Amino acid sequence: MKKLEEYVISIPDFPEPGIIFRDITSILQDPDGLKLAIDSLLEMVKDVDFDVVVGAESRGFIFGTPVAYAMGKAFVPARKPGKLPRETVSMEYALEYGTGTIELHRDSIKPGQKVVIIDDLIATGGTVEAIAKLVEELGGEVVKICFVMELAGLKGRDKLQKYDVDSAIIYEGK
Amino acid sequence: MKKLEEYVISIPDFPEPGIIFRDITSILQDPDGLKLAIDSLLEMVKDVDFDVVVGAESRGFIFGTPVAYAMGKAFVPARKPGKLPRETVSMEYALEYGTGTIELHRDSIKPGQKVVIIDDLIATGGTVEAIAKLVEELGGEVVKICFVMELAGLKGRDKLQKYDVDSAIIYEGK
Repeated sequence: MKKLEEYVISIPDFPEPGIIFRDITSILQDPDGLKLAIDSLLEMVKDVDFDVVVGAESRGFIFGTPVAYAMGKAFVPARKPGKLPRETVSMEYALEYGTGTIELHRDSIKPGQKVVIIDDLIATGGTVEAIAKLVEELGGEVVKICFVMELAGLKGRDKLQKYDVDSAIIYEGK
Repeated sequence: MKKLEEYVISIPDFPEPGIIFRDITSILQDPDGLKLAIDSLLEMVKDVDFDVVVGAESRGFIFGTPVAYAMGKAFVPARKPGKLPRETVSMEYALEYGTGTIELHRDSIKPGQKVVIIDDLIATGGTVEAIAKLVEELGGEVVKICFVMELAGLKGRDKLQKYDVDSAIIYEGK
C-alpha cells in the first residue's frame, strides 16, 4: 500500500523561483490518497473532545469538512476579507511580503466551544496563528491544530508553541 | 427536526444592492445542518455509478470532499486561474459583468471516468457549465450535477439541460 507522501507531487519553482510547491491535488485525485489523508486527520482528533472544525480558505475547506462530517461536528470557514456576508472579526498577519487578513463570522464560535483548526500545509504558520487568535477572541478554545503537510524548515511551529500541533507529513526543508 | 432550508440565513443587499445572499456558512456552523446538507447530497448520488467528484472553488470544496470521502471516490478541485501548479485546461465563461475563468489539472480526469460535479449554489449556471465542458474535453462523462441551493429565477438549469441536475433547496426568486 502506498504511503500518503507518495501521493504528493512536488513542483519546483512554483509559484515563484526557489519554492518547491507540494501539490495536495495529486493526493485527492486518487481515491486511496484522499482516504489516507482524511483518515490521518481523523486519527489525530479521534480522542480529542471538540465541537467545531475551523478550516482555512481554501484548501483547509477540502480537508476540514470531511473531518467535521465524519465526527458529527460543525464546520466554520476562515475566509479572506469580504467573503463572509455577516458580521465578522478579522486579524491581520505577516506574509513574506506584506500582510494577509483572515476573517471569521462573529457568531461562528460560541464562548466555551472547543475548536480544531485544520489546514493543508503549515509554512510560516502566520495564517493559522491568526485564526487561533480569532477563535480565542470569540471565547473559543483551540484544542488541536492539524495539518496534512509541514515544511519544518520554515519553523511555523514556533508560532504555535502553546497549541497541540500535528502534521501527517513533515518535510525537513522549506 | 429542522429542515435544511431553516439553517440558511438570507442576507439582503450582499454583496451588492438588490441581491439576496443565501449564506451556507449558517448551515455548516451547526453540526445538524452540516450533516443534513451532506446527507442530502449523498442521497442524490447513492445510486449513481461514478469515479470522481469535481468541486468548484471554493464553496464547492466544502460540500464536494465529504461526499467523495464517504463514497470512496476521488476529489478534483476546479480552481480559479493560477492556483493549480501543474498543466491545466481552462475555460472562460460569461458573468453578469465581464467573464470568469475556471481550470482543471489536465491529468485530473482520465478518459472514460464518470464525474459528479458539486457546488453550493446554482445561479446563472455559467461556472458549472464551463466545468462540465472541461470534464468532457478531458474525456470524462458528467453523470450528475448536485447543488445545495438553486436560485430558480436565474434559470441556470437552461444551460445544463443535457445533464442530470439536482438541488436540495430551490428558491423561486433570484
